Amino acid sequence: MKKYINPPEQTWKELISRPVFDNSRFVPNVQAILDEVKLNGDQALKAFSKKFDQVEIDQLKVSDTEFNLALETISIELKTAIHTAAANIEKFHIDQLPRLIRTETMPGVECWQKSIPINRVGLYIPGGTAPLFSTVLMLAIPARIAQCPEIILCTPPDKNGKINTAILYAARLCGVTKVFKAGGAQAIAAMAYGTESIPRADKIFGPGNQYVTTAKQLVSSQGIAIDLPAGPSEVMVVVDRETPAAFAAADLLSQAEHGADSQVILLTRYPEKLEEIETETLKQLEQLPRKELAAKALENSRLISFTDFNRCLGFMNAYAPEHLILAVAEPKIWADRVTQAGSVFMGYYTPESAGDYASGTNHTLPTNGFANAYSGVNMDSYLKKITFQEITPNGLKNIGKTIEIMAEAEQLMGHKNAVTVRLNTLSHGIK
Amino acid sequence: MKKYINPPEQTWKELISRPVFDNSRFVPNVQAILDEVKLNGDQALKAFSKKFDQVEIDQLKVSDTEFNLALETISIELKTAIHTAAANIEKFHIDQLPRLIRTETMPGVECWQKSIPINRVGLYIPGGTAPLFSTVLMLAIPARIAQCPEIILCTPPDKNGKINTAILYAARLCGVTKVFKAGGAQAIAAMAYGTESIPRADKIFGPGNQYVTTAKQLVSSQGIAIDLPAGPSEVMVVVDRETPAAFAAADLLSQAEHGADSQVILLTRYPEKLEEIETETLKQLEQLPRKELAAKALENSRLISFTDFNRCLGFMNAYAPEHLILAVAEPKIWADRVTQAGSVFMGYYTPESAGDYASGTNHTLPTNGFANAYSGVNMDSYLKKITFQEITPNGLKNIGKTIEIMAEAEQLMGHKNAVTVRLNTLSHGIK
Repeated sequence: MKKYINPPEQTWKELISRPVFDNSRFVPNVQAILDEVKLNGDQALKAFSKKFDQVEIDQLKVSDTEFNLALETISIELKTAIHTAAANIEKFHIDQLPRLIRTETMPGVECWQKSIPINRVGLYIPGGTAPLFSTVLMLAIPARIAQCPEIILCTPPDKNGKINTAILYAARLCGVTKVFKAGGAQAIAAMAYGTESIPRADKIFGPGNQYVTTAKQLVSSQGIAIDLPAGPSEVMVVVDRETPAAFAAADLLSQAEHGADSQVILLTRYPEKLEEIETETLKQLEQLPRKELAAKALENSRLISFTDFNRCLGFMNAYAPEHLILAVAEPKIWADRVTQAGSVFMGYYTPESAGDYASGTNHTLPTNGFANAYSGVNMDSYLKKITFQEITPNGLKNIGKTIEIMAEAEQLMGHKNAVTVRLNTLSHGIK
Repeated sequence: MKKYINPPEQTWKELISRPVFDNSRFVPNVQAILDEVKLNGDQALKAFSKKFDQVEIDQLKVSDTEFNLALETISIELKTAIHTAAANIEKFHIDQLPRLIRTETMPGVECWQKSIPINRVGLYIPGGTAPLFSTVLMLAIPARIAQCPEIILCTPPDKNGKINTAILYAARLCGVTKVFKAGGAQAIAAMAYGTESIPRADKIFGPGNQYVTTAKQLVSSQGIAIDLPAGPSEVMVVVDRETPAAFAAADLLSQAEHGADSQVILLTRYPEKLEEIETETLKQLEQLPRKELAAKALENSRLISFTDFNRCLGFMNAYAPEHLILAVAEPKIWADRVTQAGSVFMGYYTPESAGDYASGTNHTLPTNGFANAYSGVNMDSYLKKITFQEITPNGLKNIGKTIEIMAEAEQLMGHKNAVTVRLNTLSHGIK
């Protein structure tokens, strides 16, 4: 892990850079997969499953029998944990539902904005060694709160053609309408274009490997909505003199274990903390089952101190971390000055993993500095905000002249005329 | 104008199709422009101005002298109209500002979502024959309400190197920080990458020709945020038996005059209205200065009737119009069933041009069916929603077990450990 003390501003561009994740070399392969699914639908999906998942899938849709089996096999302990997390996630997201407010901007001119759920959302959940059932909660619960009429989910089958039971359990609990056995870029293609079994989704959500994220990027450039641009996960941990090194080290490692391309940054005003936390991190690393991945991520990682508080804040916001842990005694002082971050964890007893699983906030967040302009998944992600307006005859008399003058100044006489014909009708006393 | 009576559902796919706007043939040229601006900055912008705008630009930034001149030359009548519109737009958008709500999801676990303005937004305003100063209001006013620290604007100069005075007036009124003389794909490149004069923007807004929209699409696929995917403008006008044909015709034409690739759709339950409104439309067409453009747009246009109310509603939502005018006696019955549209205009006296200019709602809206998943520009477009959480030691005791169980089930022991080290510290009575 590299250490930096008071690095000058001209080096920041390098210090905030992420591990390169260039998807361009995946584009030709992924485009071929998209084209194949668009052309051959289910048949293409089954062929890809045979090729990539090494399994022959007869029916893409998960059956009720499979769901029921999952419900039986999952432990009560895990069920309880999932229910607790789901309740918190639901509580937090319900509170973020937008209100409908009517505004009379002028007498007789009433405008409002109504939130309407996206009709069909498609969720992607990766398979592989770590079954991300928590992401099912994070993506499906707000969809259900938004009242999206259809919530479909694609996830790859294992070599026996099965889906992880915790994923099925979470899907059923959170109101997912249908689950399909399809993974990778081909699953994204299926949800983007539709196949015989899998309906076309209006918006596609979820994490994935570089094939999946490249596929999302490609369909997004065709106008199909996606949740967020993707990049490897990252955390910035801010510590003060009193922060227990064990806490900071555990937080850094909880991010580093995600993958070799994860990045973890320690930031502090106290240079003596850099070595203390590095030592503790390397010690804890030895205990981790995924220590090889985590060790690689630590190579991309940085321990940085700035004696000056404002420069510390400046660097924090310039980095625009996906996760920002303010493991300091007075986190509010820092939190009030956060302008760019995905999700912020305040104080010594708020680890990132709380937000990853169970506290209630969403864990689908902007990475790679995208927090400069993007929000994490939230209720807005599932809603279209449609504006409405209703103008009375008197209202049009009040606002009509303004519209006519502006339309004429823009040389759009048709726009002007749409007002004029109405005002003429009113002044002639016709209905 | 083609007329359809009770078209069967299998023909809808064709009937909801938009005029083809394939940008792919622009990609190589636009990519070359982007690369050139990335490499040579201001110098490239000036060279492109010479080439495309036929003018040599000495200073890209509009000077105070130029602003002051604009303030003097614009008529009082237009100033008053702009002020009235600006006040309405401000009133409506302020009411849409999200609240901050704190949620205690469990005792000791507090979560909230805070809206923070995007640091620097870049607005593009096209030049050409129709100076779209109304778009300055629509894009800059919500940015100012959001308190974006920097609002920059690019717009092409005319052959004398000048910017339209109404655009400058609106920019100054709405708190635009800096205006630059740059147009086309090169202006988008400048805001995406930054040049010596023009700072890099975090998000790019605004309409434009196919070069501009292709440039926005290309920079967006590089992760630079944009407002909306683009397409030609469109309106659907719904009429009943009593709707004055003159109103419907004027509304259809106010959209058709935008450009040859605009599309206008009439929808009704009364087949006898199709011919009546077609006749009136062709009559009014003759009076329009932009009648050639409008006539071309009418070729892409359709007059459709469904006797069945539900099929009428079904078609309305399947089309997902950018603008939906419900010029009917009881618009609420229809409006309550709208699920896909950009902006809805209710009743006989609510023309689309009210929303285009002055009623208060935004006129930057999803075209091309994108209303299935996208919202028009609104306060969210200028804000990042950052989640925060703060967990007390007791809170972590309440939620810790849940996190540990879920992390273990996902085989992410580092995530679990970030909780365990803290719970251990608490149970040993250490601070």
